[in-house]
Amino acid sequence: MSRTAQTFAPPVMEARRWITGLEFPADRPLINVSQAAPVDPPPPPLLAEMARLVTEVPETHLYGPVLGLGPLREEIAQQWSEAYGGSVAPSQVAITAGCNQAFAAAVSTLCDEGDEVILPVPYYFNHAMWLQMEGVRAVPLQTHAGLLPDADEAAALIGPRTRAIALVTPNNPGGVEYPAALVRAFFDLARARGIALIVDETYRDFDSRAAPVHDLFGEADWDDTLIHLYSFSKTYRLTGHRVGAMLSSPARLAEAEKFLDTVAICAPQLGQHAALWGMRNLTRWKAGERAEILDRRAALEEGIATLDGWDLLGCGAYFAYVQHPFDLPSNTAAERLVTEAGVLMLPGTMFRPEGDASAARELRIAFANVDRAGIATLMDRLRAARLR
Amino acid sequence: MSRTAQTFAPPVMEARRWITGLEFPADRPLINVSQAAPVDPPPPPLLAEMARLVTEVPETHLYGPVLGLGPLREEIAQQWSEAYGGSVAPSQVAITAGCNQAFAAAVSTLCDEGDEVILPVPYYFNHAMWLQMEGVRAVPLQTHAGLLPDADEAAALIGPRTRAIALVTPNNPGGVEYPAALVRAFFDLARARGIALIVDETYRDFDSRAAPVHDLFGEADWDDTLIHLYSFSKTYRLTGHRVGAMLSSPARLAEAEKFLDTVAICAPQLGQHAALWGMRNLTRWKAGERAEILDRRAALEEGIATLDGWDLLGCGAYFAYVQHPFDLPSNTAAERLVTEAGVLMLPGTMFRPEGDASAARELRIAFANVDRAGIATLMDRLRAARLR
Repeated sequence: MSRTAQTFAPPVMEARRWITGLEFPADRPLINVSQAAPVDPPPPPLLAEMARLVTEVPETHLYGPVLGLGPLREEIAQQWSEAYGGSVAPSQVAITAGCNQAFAAAVSTLCDEGDEVILPVPYYFNHAMWLQMEGVRAVPLQTHAGLLPDADEAAALIGPRTRAIALVTPNNPGGVEYPAALVRAFFDLARARGIALIVDETYRDFDSRAAPVHDLFGEADWDDTLIHLYSFSKTYRLTGHRVGAMLSSPARLAEAEKFLDTVAICAPQLGQHAALWGMRNLTRWKAGERAEILDRRAALEEGIATLDGWDLLGCGAYFAYVQHPFDLPSNTAAERLVTEAGVLMLPGTMFRPEGDASAARELRIAFANVDRAGIATLMDRLRAARLR
Repeated sequence: MSRTAQTFAPPVMEARRWITGLEFPADRPLINVSQAAPVDPPPPPLLAEMARLVTEVPETHLYGPVLGLGPLREEIAQQWSEAYGGSVAPSQVAITAGCNQAFAAAVSTLCDEGDEVILPVPYYFNHAMWLQMEGVRAVPLQTHAGLLPDADEAAALIGPRTRAIALVTPNNPGGVEYPAALVRAFFDLARARGIALIVDETYRDFDSRAAPVHDLFGEADWDDTLIHLYSFSKTYRLTGHRVGAMLSSPARLAEAEKFLDTVAICAPQLGQHAALWGMRNLTRWKAGERAEILDRRAALEEGIATLDGWDLLGCGAYFAYVQHPFDLPSNTAAERLVTEAGVLMLPGTMFRPEGDASAARELRIAFANVDRAGIATLMDRLRAARLR
């Protein structure tokens, strides 16, 4: 059996098939809350800069260093040091072609065939897919109220083949923002047991809290344990340009360099230059984007509270994770909501291992592209839905 | 041991370290013939189109389908069908973020831990690296006069774990253009033994022959055996934008989709749009580029013939593969040529498994960026070099 045969088909592709060939009336268009992706281009000043880069900066079109543009690595090091109140050097930063690639690279520096990585469930499905394709066992860690995992329970899952625990905060699919103390507890556990802690902070710029989610970059030798992942895709609306980052020790990044060279050679140059410009020039714009997402989140929370039988399990950043009231498994419910409510969301079965009974009642709503009015319409449709 | 620990550091990075911190006199600058990459941006009309895409086409900035833009897949299918006198459907074409990624995706659909892939040596080092990181054994197939591999010898290397043979034509590092009969013999062998034949044609647009390198796309059910790889990087000078392609059966591409989704989500959109525009509008320009490269190749061949003790083992597309006259292992010779001749080329040790004695005398010259005058200077420096 090949490596790819060891995992499942991309869930987003499957969901796309549910809507293929369907027509939705003009006065009742599909509300697509299946994918966490901006639907608008970057703001005009960044577009203008990108056009300038294309026409005036020849290096935009050439190979760059495998681990990324020097100035971008420096900018991340500086801004991260300040934001987290810690110490990050440019040599601890690598640029990847998106955050999925950062996760893949990180795992390749940690694991061999038959190793294990602990993933809280519900998980981000691409993490599970990559582990399976790498011959690594994804060990599920059940979560509790508020979709929070428990470090003591994780400790009990660590065995001789465990190489890492991977957290996502704010969480995909759960939306939950992990408390700083929780992240710290997992870091301490990982360090004590000599394994890595991967923290995927793709959605960090939409965290509702003023304080940083953790202070681990202030820890001496944080890079012997922590692998931090980030994406420029959502924040600067650069999904089509594929730029992410991986922060860890220079030694681990030298290992990741082998993987990145072989799978990508380098992250696309235009996206890297655009990310750098965004970091330097779009602070205020970014704050506006965050405020808007937080407002939509509030609308979502208020809306779900008005629905009979629906429960909000977690909410934050781009996602609400809910329990539906129907007497149907979630994948059937999700597919039926397309035709009967004109709503596309992903079922819990896509975020949990096969056979996990909790998945049956769960749905993920990626609400970031829907404004307040759209969220009101979404709630009306869910309220009216009668699936049997 | 992690997956990345199972392979070597990227050779191009190592070579870059040889020149780090060195200064070269203005009247005798470094001649860098280490990497196969254009040093100029795309031609002005393509730059203008890319600027237009950035400012006027919002989808340029959004996620696209995992397997690539529909129109680009269609254009490749059509142009390939015509060029090779065969039949390629859009559903047999996937777009990747560069040709390295296409190779990685292909292998992931073929192999599991402990499987084997046969590689003619000297090989393209990123192929060997990926196989090692995947837990796949790269089985070396020695080549003969003109750096040509022999299908009968390959047959003797096929065992129960063999999943594929991977050819590169025109070859990297050898430059050699494989005869059509040779490619056909390998295809027949692969099909008869139920394994795949990967043919990496990254440099196809610089082949000196008028006829296509093979007619395999005319074979019924070619896609049960053949996996064809291509890159837009060299032809359209889009290295910084990361666009390549993988042609095979729709079923295999559905497997590749899992890998690509998890490692890249999609190839960068701007590069895909640019490649499509190039395919539709730059046919004449491309022919001029090819003529220029073929002229440089002729200059290189003429030049090497004037050097005492140097032998040309293979030459074509971007590469000359040579035997040097020095009583030094090739990695030492390559490093010394930097300081003593102001020339950076890669040693044969980077293209063969450890312990392969042939590597000791071999060097690769990636001459594509050096014009006739530069090649004359390169020859003067090599002629004068006295390494001991």
